[in-house]
Amino acid sequence: MWRVMETPLNCAEEQQPPPAFPASWSTVTPQESTPDRNDKGNVGFVLVHAGAGYHSESKAKEYKHVCKRACQRAVDRLKAGALAVDAVTAALVELEDSPFTNAGMGSNLNLSGEIECDASIMDGKSLRYGAVGAVSGINNPVLVANRLLSEAQKGKLSAGRIPPCFLVGRGAHDWAVNHGIPPCPSEKMATKFSLSAYKRNKHKMELAEKVDTGFNHHSKKRRQASETENGSGLLDTVGAIVVDREGNVAAAVSSGGLAMKHPGRVGQAAHHGCGCWAENTSTLNPYSTAVSTSGCGEHLIRTMLARECSSAMQCEDAHQALLEAMQNKFISSPFLASEDCVLGGVIVLRCCRCSDAQPSPDIQAILVEFLWSHTTESMCVGYMSAQDGKAKTHISRLPPGAVAGQSLAIEGGVCRLVNTPTTVD
Amino acid sequence: MWRVMETPLNCAEEQQPPPAFPASWSTVTPQESTPDRNDKGNVGFVLVHAGAGYHSESKAKEYKHVCKRACQRAVDRLKAGALAVDAVTAALVELEDSPFTNAGMGSNLNLSGEIECDASIMDGKSLRYGAVGAVSGINNPVLVANRLLSEAQKGKLSAGRIPPCFLVGRGAHDWAVNHGIPPCPSEKMATKFSLSAYKRNKHKMELAEKVDTGFNHHSKKRRQASETENGSGLLDTVGAIVVDREGNVAAAVSSGGLAMKHPGRVGQAAHHGCGCWAENTSTLNPYSTAVSTSGCGEHLIRTMLARECSSAMQCEDAHQALLEAMQNKFISSPFLASEDCVLGGVIVLRCCRCSDAQPSPDIQAILVEFLWSHTTESMCVGYMSAQDGKAKTHISRLPPGAVAGQSLAIEGGVCRLVNTPTTVD
Repeated sequence: MWRVMETPLNCAEEQQPPPAFPASWSTVTPQESTPDRNDKGNVGFVLVHAGAGYHSESKAKEYKHVCKRACQRAVDRLKAGALAVDAVTAALVELEDSPFTNAGMGSNLNLSGEIECDASIMDGKSLRYGAVGAVSGINNPVLVANRLLSEAQKGKLSAGRIPPCFLVGRGAHDWAVNHGIPPCPSEKMATKFSLSAYKRNKHKMELAEKVDTGFNHHSKKRRQASETENGSGLLDTVGAIVVDREGNVAAAVSSGGLAMKHPGRVGQAAHHGCGCWAENTSTLNPYSTAVSTSGCGEHLIRTMLARECSSAMQCEDAHQALLEAMQNKFISSPFLASEDCVLGGVIVLRCCRCSDAQPSPDIQAILVEFLWSHTTESMCVGYMSAQDGKAKTHISRLPPGAVAGQSLAIEGGVCRLVNTPTTVD
Repeated sequence: MWRVMETPLNCAEEQQPPPAFPASWSTVTPQESTPDRNDKGNVGFVLVHAGAGYHSESKAKEYKHVCKRACQRAVDRLKAGALAVDAVTAALVELEDSPFTNAGMGSNLNLSGEIECDASIMDGKSLRYGAVGAVSGINNPVLVANRLLSEAQKGKLSAGRIPPCFLVGRGAHDWAVNHGIPPCPSEKMATKFSLSAYKRNKHKMELAEKVDTGFNHHSKKRRQASETENGSGLLDTVGAIVVDREGNVAAAVSSGGLAMKHPGRVGQAAHHGCGCWAENTSTLNPYSTAVSTSGCGEHLIRTMLARECSSAMQCEDAHQALLEAMQNKFISSPFLASEDCVLGGVIVLRCCRCSDAQPSPDIQAILVEFLWSHTTESMCVGYMSAQDGKAKTHISRLPPGAVAGQSLAIEGGVCRLVNTPTTVD
């Protein structure tokens, strides 16, 4: 079993960085550590995001709060001995329950004024994935994704039927309720904020269409009108990635989707390889990796950004690998050649057991490198090790002068988890 | 513009094979060619499949017929000057319209006795994708996928909204009808065959569950019961891949999904990277590639088989590349480590302009290598060049003694398309 040693969660500039880390690695202050050495489950790490978009200062505060609580929920589960999949689910439930995020409660309303959510989860150990798309009346869509994953692990259904990994719409809702996940009346999932945003957006749309009818009958021009109007920050998909005491990774993501989306639209949060990705180390992969994305679903689907970033993280230099992946596989991706503004963000972690860093043959160290990167104005993240007293949160912003959709920010840190041999009581 | 020269569609053993092709390349007899040299649009190639599963001799005949008609529909469009995306759509409409295939009309019924279809399309030129999942009451789901793709190409919607690439359920149905795609009463989409299969399957399920209740309360055992019962051939997703006169590739796939699936279940046919893939040549890719898959949706989703095969086809030896991809990325995939029976099939094409094969500076040749491979008992394919009088069809079967789900069959051929300079009339 892995345990955190007294070495606190440290970032590169506070601790001797591993050779693969660049000198330019950004500074994140270390945690106040309050390790509980009697707690055997005191090992693991979680990184969460509350969306890549635009966060004003007042909004930032609420987002930081919910990220902090989500980290705490995951760490509570890790300390109780839960594996990565359950810890990542706990973080997502907290993020979905916040009325400020665009996931679960408080999600964006679609064109018909309804809430339809997407969510998915991936387990790096079994490499299984579970997802729901365009599901209404379920407050915590991630619980359905998690349950799909665990039910599929039980094997085939009666008469040799293969259990589903992806359910949508009414069928997803009914499956969830039949599996004990409580339904929630849709009107309870809307908030004052989401309802007023819906009214504002509807008015904006009507105006845009009136301008079109009155002054311009050319459909191409209508299409190009007010291109930036959707850039108002409502891309706040939430997600989390976790490594547990056994070194397993898991990733999850949940979203209410774009504001005023067409009913039935499914975004990247339900799409395998696009919303999240997790892969334990294997003979082919030196690192275990986990990724969760946020941003414009259509851009993230077409580029399969979660899987691309995961795959890139097998290169030696984590920072450089993510930088190149975001540049070449997203901003300059041939799949988005026609887009002048490419909006998205990712959180990424990778870990490995570093033989040169082992204190003794009985004590092994696991190195967790964690990063976030985004092309949106800002991205809100939080992270915490199971050893920490509280989570660290951060609003990452593009450098001054950088253009959203064309430039990127990238930051991160490193933390070392160390196990001690478990003694029998 | 590309035109077929008098050189007929030839397969490797009838024509000097390109160096990359192995000596063991399977024999497929050449077409009777009736080229119309006055027809400027007489260039292009289509390969279709009517599912990987099990085809009895009587069933095989119907499948071959529909593959032939689907090839003809695509070629008719190519001859009329259509690009790959439209030709591939025409092939799919024909495959969906057949009551014998598990797509559109005659699709498998789900657990509630309803038909819910998945379909997607990808354009190798724009690299765009359009998909529908779990959509009812639409006879030709591929038309909705195609329309989603073309609507997205027009740019943003009013008020800067990003057009959807993936719609599911009721929302997909309503979007389709609003875009002029005719609805079809669900009862008209069921056939005598699909209804009797539903009754048979329902009875089988009830029996399996009764046996379970009567003799065995252990859920794990119940889960494993009658594992092979779904291997009755009802995996007949259909698909097509096309290269047009300009060398553009496109791919499409359509499916009614697994028999007795849970309502709302979405399979690989709607999943980006899993059901189909198409990528024109680029600075990074020497070949244009197109892939369409069939088989157990959950296996194809977890392995992202369409994209994996497309990516593998950039290696020099097409036959070896597909063989290795099917072996390493499907049968022995770490993503399916827990599965003892991995069911699927692919059709693949790749093409390039071969400088050493150009007859003169004014006349250029394009080489099309096409293959199919499956782990199921059999797979029905058809192919045709725009120069041919009729399509060639084939039921590919596993070698004697091979075990379905653990072994594979692989076959293919090569055809050369040659353009002549277009003269102004």
